[in-house]
Amino acid sequence: MNQEERHTISILVDNEPGVLSRVAGLFSGRGFNIVSLNVAETLESGLSRITLVSYGVAQIQEQINKQLRKLVNVVKVTDFSDSDCVEREMALVKVQSDAAHRAEVLRIADIFRCKVVDVSPNDYTIEVTGNRGKIEALIDLLRPVGSLEIARTGVIAMARSKKGIKK
Amino acid sequence: MNQEERHTISILVDNEPGVLSRVAGLFSGRGFNIVSLNVAETLESGLSRITLVSYGVAQIQEQINKQLRKLVNVVKVTDFSDSDCVEREMALVKVQSDAAHRAEVLRIADIFRCKVVDVSPNDYTIEVTGNRGKIEALIDLLRPVGSLEIARTGVIAMARSKKGIKK
Repeated sequence: MNQEERHTISILVDNEPGVLSRVAGLFSGRGFNIVSLNVAETLESGLSRITLVSYGVAQIQEQINKQLRKLVNVVKVTDFSDSDCVEREMALVKVQSDAAHRAEVLRIADIFRCKVVDVSPNDYTIEVTGNRGKIEALIDLLRPVGSLEIARTGVIAMARSKKGIKK
Repeated sequence: MNQEERHTISILVDNEPGVLSRVAGLFSGRGFNIVSLNVAETLESGLSRITLVSYGVAQIQEQINKQLRKLVNVVKVTDFSDSDCVEREMALVKVQSDAAHRAEVLRIADIFRCKVVDVSPNDYTIEVTGNRGKIEALIDLLRPVGSLEIARTGVIAMARSKKGIKK
Protein backbone atom coordinates (compact mmCIF):
# COMPACT_ATOMS: atom_id res chain seq x y z
CA MET A 1 0.00 0.00 0.00
CA ASN A 2 1.74 3.09 -1.21
CA GLN A 3 -1.33 5.25 -0.99
CA GLU A 4 -1.03 8.61 0.75
CA GLU A 5 -2.91 8.73 4.02
CA ARG A 6 -3.69 11.32 6.63
CA HIS A 7 -1.77 10.91 9.87
CA THR A 8 -2.47 12.61 13.19
CA ILE A 9 0.52 12.40 15.51
CA SER A 10 0.91 13.59 19.07
CA ILE A 11 4.45 14.16 20.34
CA LEU A 12 5.31 14.90 23.96
CA VAL A 13 8.54 16.91 24.12
CA ASP A 14 10.75 18.77 26.58
CA ASN A 15 9.96 22.47 26.38
CA GLU A 16 13.37 23.58 25.07
CA PRO A 17 14.42 25.82 22.19
CA GLY A 18 15.22 23.87 19.04
CA VAL A 19 12.93 20.86 19.55
CA LEU A 20 10.17 22.14 17.27
CA SER A 21 12.65 23.03 14.55
CA ARG A 22 14.14 19.49 14.66
CA VAL A 23 10.71 17.81 14.61
CA ALA A 24 9.54 19.93 11.67
CA GLY A 25 12.87 19.33 9.94
CA LEU A 26 12.37 15.54 10.06
CA PHE A 27 9.19 15.92 8.01
CA SER A 28 10.46 18.49 5.53
CA GLY A 29 13.66 16.45 5.04
CA ARG A 30 11.51 13.70 3.56
CA GLY A 31 9.32 16.07 1.58
CA PHE A 32 6.34 15.42 3.85
CA ASN A 33 4.18 18.49 4.00
CA ILE A 34 2.69 19.30 7.39
CA VAL A 35 -1.00 20.19 6.94
CA SER A 36 -1.36 21.59 10.45
CA LEU A 37 0.72 21.63 13.61
CA ASN A 38 0.39 23.09 17.05
CA VAL A 39 2.47 23.10 20.18
CA ALA A 40 1.53 24.24 23.69
CA GLU A 41 2.20 23.47 27.33
CA THR A 42 0.81 20.42 29.13
CA LEU A 43 -0.16 19.73 32.75
CA GLU A 44 3.46 18.93 33.61
CA SER A 45 5.72 21.96 33.65
CA GLY A 46 8.65 21.56 31.29
CA LEU A 47 6.72 19.35 28.89
CA SER A 48 4.93 20.52 25.72
CA ARG A 49 2.72 18.60 23.33
CA ILE A 50 3.04 18.87 19.55
CA THR A 51 0.03 17.68 17.56
CA LEU A 52 0.55 17.47 13.83
CA VAL A 53 -1.37 16.32 10.78
CA SER A 54 0.50 15.21 7.69
CA TYR A 55 -0.27 13.42 4.43
CA GLY A 56 2.01 10.67 3.22
CA VAL A 57 2.70 7.01 2.64
CA ALA A 58 2.16 4.90 5.78
CA GLN A 59 5.55 3.16 5.57
CA ILE A 60 7.46 6.43 5.45
CA GLN A 61 5.35 7.82 8.30
CA GLU A 62 6.37 4.77 10.32
CA GLN A 63 10.04 5.54 9.61
CA ILE A 64 9.53 9.16 10.65
CA ASN A 65 7.87 8.02 13.89
CA LYS A 66 10.89 5.82 14.66
CA GLN A 67 13.25 8.72 14.04
CA LEU A 68 11.09 11.02 16.17
CA ARG A 69 11.38 8.56 19.07
CA LYS A 70 15.18 8.67 18.76
CA LEU A 71 15.34 12.48 19.02
CA VAL A 72 16.73 13.94 22.22
CA ASN A 73 13.94 15.81 24.09
CA VAL A 74 11.18 13.67 22.56
CA VAL A 75 9.43 11.87 25.42
CA LYS A 76 6.57 10.04 23.69
CA VAL A 77 5.13 9.66 20.18
CA THR A 78 1.51 8.59 19.62
CA ASP A 79 0.21 7.93 16.11
CA PHE A 80 -3.59 8.25 16.15
CA SER A 81 -3.96 6.96 12.57
CA ASP A 82 -5.28 3.53 13.53
CA SER A 83 -6.96 4.33 16.84
CA ASP A 84 -10.21 5.94 17.79
CA CYS A 85 -9.68 9.53 18.89
CA VAL A 86 -11.44 12.85 19.37
CA GLU A 87 -10.12 15.42 16.89
CA ARG A 88 -11.11 19.07 17.28
CA GLU A 89 -10.01 22.31 15.76
CA MET A 90 -10.88 25.97 16.31
CA ALA A 91 -11.04 28.80 13.81
CA LEU A 92 -11.65 32.55 13.94
CA VAL A 93 -13.36 33.82 10.79
CA LYS A 94 -13.74 37.52 10.07
CA VAL A 95 -16.73 37.96 7.80
CA GLN A 96 -18.43 40.91 6.13
CA SER A 97 -21.57 41.96 8.01
CA ASP A 98 -23.01 45.04 6.41
CA ALA A 99 -26.79 45.44 6.44
CA ALA A 100 -27.29 43.16 3.43
CA HIS A 101 -25.35 40.22 4.89
CA ARG A 102 -25.84 40.47 8.66
CA ALA A 103 -28.91 38.25 9.01
CA GLU A 104 -27.45 35.51 6.81
CA VAL A 105 -24.14 35.50 8.71
CA LEU A 106 -25.90 35.22 12.06
CA ARG A 107 -28.15 32.43 10.76
CA ILE A 108 -25.14 30.41 9.63
CA ALA A 109 -23.28 31.17 12.89
CA ASP A 110 -26.27 29.96 14.86
CA ILE A 111 -26.59 26.68 12.94
CA PHE A 112 -22.89 25.94 13.49
CA ARG A 113 -23.09 27.00 17.16
CA CYS A 114 -20.45 29.67 16.67
CA LYS A 115 -19.70 32.48 19.10
CA VAL A 116 -19.41 36.05 17.84
CA VAL A 117 -16.25 37.32 19.56
CA ASP A 118 -15.82 40.74 17.94
CA VAL A 119 -18.23 43.12 16.26
CA SER A 120 -17.81 46.26 14.18
CA PRO A 121 -20.26 48.04 11.89
CA ASN A 122 -18.77 46.24 8.88
CA ASP A 123 -17.67 42.83 10.09
CA TYR A 124 -18.10 40.08 12.65
CA THR A 125 -15.36 37.82 13.96
CA ILE A 126 -16.82 34.43 14.76
CA GLU A 127 -15.31 31.49 16.62
CA VAL A 128 -16.12 27.92 15.60
CA THR A 129 -14.94 24.58 16.98
CA GLY A 130 -15.41 21.10 15.60
CA ASN A 131 -13.77 18.54 13.43
CA ARG A 132 -12.07 19.44 10.18
CA GLY A 133 -15.18 18.73 8.11
CA LYS A 134 -17.39 21.07 10.13
CA ILE A 135 -14.92 23.93 9.94
CA GLU A 136 -14.48 23.52 6.20
CA ALA A 137 -18.25 23.37 5.67
CA LEU A 138 -18.62 26.67 7.56
CA ILE A 139 -15.85 28.32 5.56
CA ASP A 140 -17.46 27.17 2.29
CA LEU A 141 -20.81 28.63 3.37
CA LEU A 142 -19.32 31.96 4.45
CA ARG A 143 -17.06 32.38 1.43
CA PRO A 144 -19.82 33.76 -0.89
CA VAL A 145 -21.04 36.08 1.88
CA GLY A 146 -17.62 37.65 2.04
CA SER A 147 -15.08 36.03 4.37
CA LEU A 148 -12.26 38.47 4.91
CA GLU A 149 -9.73 36.59 6.99
CA ILE A 150 -9.27 33.32 8.82
CA ALA A 151 -7.02 31.96 11.57
CA ARG A 152 -7.16 28.23 12.31
CA THR A 153 -5.52 26.39 15.19
CA GLY A 154 -5.00 23.08 13.44
CA VAL A 155 -6.20 19.81 14.92
CA ILE A 156 -5.67 18.66 18.50
CA ALA A 157 -6.46 15.06 19.35
CA MET A 158 -7.12 12.89 22.36
CA ALA A 159 -7.57 9.11 22.52
CA ARG A 160 -11.16 8.10 23.13
CA SER A 161 -11.80 6.30 26.37
CA LYS A 162 -12.90 2.70 26.18
CA LYS A 163 -16.65 2.32 25.89
CA GLY A 164 -16.76 6.00 24.91
CA ILE A 165 -19.98 7.37 23.46
CA LYS A 166 -19.48 9.13 20.15
CA LYS A 167 -20.87 12.63 20.11
CA MET B 1 13.67 48.55 28.43
CA ASN B 2 15.23 45.13 28.54
CA GLN B 3 12.27 43.54 30.21
CA GLU B 4 10.93 40.30 28.82
CA GLU B 5 7.54 40.68 27.22
CA ARG B 6 4.97 38.42 25.66
CA HIS B 7 4.72 38.67 21.89
CA THR B 8 1.97 37.30 19.67
CA ILE B 9 3.08 37.12 16.05
CA SER B 10 1.15 36.09 12.97
CA ILE B 11 3.16 34.97 9.93
CA LEU B 12 1.66 34.29 6.52
CA VAL B 13 3.81 31.76 4.66
CA ASP B 14 3.85 29.68 1.49
CA ASN B 15 2.69 26.17 2.31
CA GLU B 16 5.97 24.40 1.49
CA PRO B 17 8.07 21.85 3.37
CA GLY B 18 10.85 23.46 5.40
CA VAL B 19 9.25 26.85 6.11
CA LEU B 20 8.13 25.95 9.62
CA SER B 21 11.51 24.50 10.48
CA ARG B 22 13.26 27.69 9.35
CA VAL B 23 10.84 29.97 11.25
CA ALA B 24 11.19 27.92 14.45
CA GLY B 25 14.96 27.83 13.93
CA LEU B 26 15.15 31.66 13.91
CA PHE B 27 13.70 31.73 17.42
CA SER B 28 15.69 28.85 18.86
CA GLY B 29 18.90 30.25 17.36
CA ARG B 30 18.50 33.26 19.63
CA GLY B 31 17.45 31.21 22.64
CA PHE B 32 13.88 32.50 22.43
CA ASN B 33 11.54 29.86 23.70
CA ILE B 34 8.24 29.51 21.83
CA VAL B 35 5.40 29.24 24.35
CA SER B 36 2.86 28.14 21.77
CA LEU B 37 2.71 27.91 18.00
CA ASN B 38 0.24 26.72 15.44
CA VAL B 39 0.11 26.52 11.69
CA ALA B 40 -2.83 25.76 9.42
CA GLU B 41 -4.25 26.59 6.01
CA THR B 42 -5.87 29.94 5.17
CA LEU B 43 -8.58 30.99 2.72
CA GLU B 44 -6.05 31.19 -0.11
CA SER B 45 -4.78 27.83 -1.27
CA GLY B 46 -1.01 27.56 -1.02
CA LEU B 47 -0.79 29.95 1.93
CA SER B 48 -0.63 28.94 5.61
CA ARG B 49 -0.71 31.08 8.71
CA ILE B 50 1.67 30.54 11.64
CA THR B 51 0.59 32.13 14.94
CA LEU B 52 3.18 32.03 17.68
CA VAL B 53 3.59 33.33 21.21
CA SER B 54 7.06 33.92 22.60
CA TYR B 55 8.61 35.64 25.61
CA GLY B 56 11.59 37.87 25.14
CA VAL B 57 13.13 41.32 25.04
CA ALA B 58 11.27 43.65 22.66
CA GLN B 59 14.40 44.77 20.81
CA ILE B 60 15.43 41.22 19.98
CA GLN B 61 11.88 40.39 18.94
CA GLU B 62 12.08 43.32 16.53
CA GLN B 63 15.28 41.88 15.08
CA ILE B 64 13.65 38.46 14.71
CA ASN B 65 10.66 40.06 12.93
CA LYS B 66 13.03 41.73 10.46
CA GLN B 67 14.78 38.44 9.78
CA LEU B 68 11.42 36.67 9.39
CA ARG B 69 10.44 39.19 6.71
CA LYS B 70 13.64 38.39 4.82
CA LEU B 71 12.95 34.63 4.71
CA VAL B 72 11.99 33.13 1.37
CA ASN B 73 8.37 31.89 1.54
CA VAL B 74 7.38 34.40 4.24
CA VAL B 75 4.66 36.63 2.80
CA LYS B 76 3.67 38.84 5.75
CA VAL B 77 4.59 39.27 9.43
CA THR B 78 2.19 40.93 11.90
CA ASP B 79 3.27 41.60 15.49
CA PHE B 80 0.15 41.96 17.64
CA SER B 81 2.11 43.10 20.71
CA ASP B 82 1.09 46.75 20.48
CA SER B 83 -2.27 46.42 18.77
CA ASP B 84 -5.70 45.46 19.92
CA CYS B 85 -6.54 41.91 18.94
CA VAL B 86 -8.81 38.98 19.73
CA GLU B 87 -6.77 36.07 21.14
CA ARG B 88 -8.43 32.70 21.59
CA GLU B 89 -7.24 29.22 22.39
CA MET B 90 -8.89 25.80 22.64
CA ALA B 91 -8.09 22.91 24.93
CA LEU B 92 -9.30 19.35 25.38
CA VAL B 93 -9.09 18.21 29.01
CA LYS B 94 -9.62 14.60 30.04
CA VAL B 95 -10.80 14.58 33.62
CA GLN B 96 -11.72 11.86 36.11
CA SER B 97 -15.47 11.49 36.43
CA ASP B 98 -16.26 8.63 38.74
CA ALA B 99 -19.39 8.88 40.88
CA ALA B 100 -17.67 11.05 43.50
CA HIS B 101 -16.45 13.68 41.04
CA ARG B 102 -19.02 13.73 38.26
CA ALA B 103 -21.30 16.47 39.60
CA GLU B 104 -18.41 18.79 40.40
CA VAL B 105 -16.83 18.33 36.96
CA LEU B 106 -20.11 19.09 35.21
CA ARG B 107 -20.69 22.17 37.40
CA ILE B 108 -17.28 23.57 36.50
CA ALA B 109 -17.76 22.67 32.81
CA ASP B 110 -21.10 24.48 32.85
CA ILE B 111 -19.69 27.66 34.42
CA PHE B 112 -16.90 27.78 31.82
CA ARG B 113 -19.34 26.96 28.98
CA CYS B 114 -17.41 23.86 28.02
CA LYS B 115 -18.70 21.10 25.76
CA VAL B 116 -18.36 17.48 26.82
CA VAL B 117 -17.04 15.78 23.67
CA ASP B 118 -16.36 12.24 24.94
CA VAL B 119 -17.72 10.22 27.83
CA SER B 120 -16.74 6.95 29.45
CA PRO B 121 -17.71 5.48 32.84
CA ASN B 122 -14.48 6.84 34.33
CA ASP B 123 -13.69 10.07 32.55
CA TYR B 124 -15.03 12.99 30.55
CA THR B 125 -13.19 14.81 27.77
CA ILE B 126 -14.24 18.45 27.77
CA GLU B 127 -13.58 21.17 25.23
CA VAL B 128 -13.01 24.77 26.33
CA THR B 129 -12.28 27.91 24.34
CA GLY B 130 -11.27 31.34 25.55
CA ASN B 131 -8.26 33.47 26.25
CA ARG B 132 -5.20 32.10 27.98
CA GLY B 133 -6.39 33.22 31.43
CA LYS B 134 -9.72 31.43 31.16
CA ILE B 135 -8.14 28.17 30.05
CA GLU B 136 -5.58 28.29 32.85
CA ALA B 137 -8.27 29.06 35.42
CA LEU B 138 -10.21 25.99 34.28
CA ILE B 139 -7.14 23.77 34.43
CA ASP B 140 -6.36 25.00 37.96
CA LEU B 141 -9.93 24.20 39.06
CA LEU B 142 -9.92 20.73 37.50
CA ARG B 143 -6.46 19.76 38.71
CA PRO B 144 -7.58 18.77 42.25
CA VAL B 145 -10.57 16.86 40.81
CA GLY B 146 -8.17 14.72 38.83
CA SER B 147 -7.19 15.99 35.39
CA LEU B 148 -5.65 13.14 33.47
CA GLU B 149 -4.48 14.65 30.22
CA ILE B 150 -4.59 17.89 28.26
CA ALA B 151 -4.13 18.98 24.64
CA ARG B 152 -4.02 22.73 23.91
CA THR B 153 -4.02 24.40 20.52
CA GLY B 154 -2.03 27.46 21.46
CA VAL B 155 -3.27 30.98 20.78
CA ILE B 156 -4.70 32.20 17.47
CA ALA B 157 -5.18 35.94 17.01
CA MET B 158 -7.05 38.36 14.81
CA ALA B 159 -6.85 42.15 14.73
CA ARG B 160 -9.91 43.82 16.21
CA SER B 161 -11.95 45.86 13.83
CA LYS B 162 -12.11 49.62 14.38
CA LYS B 163 -14.88 50.59 16.73
CA GLY B 164 -15.04 46.95 17.81
CA ILE B 165 -17.01 46.09 20.91
CA LYS B 166 -15.03 44.06 23.42
CA LYS B 167 -16.75 40.86 24.43
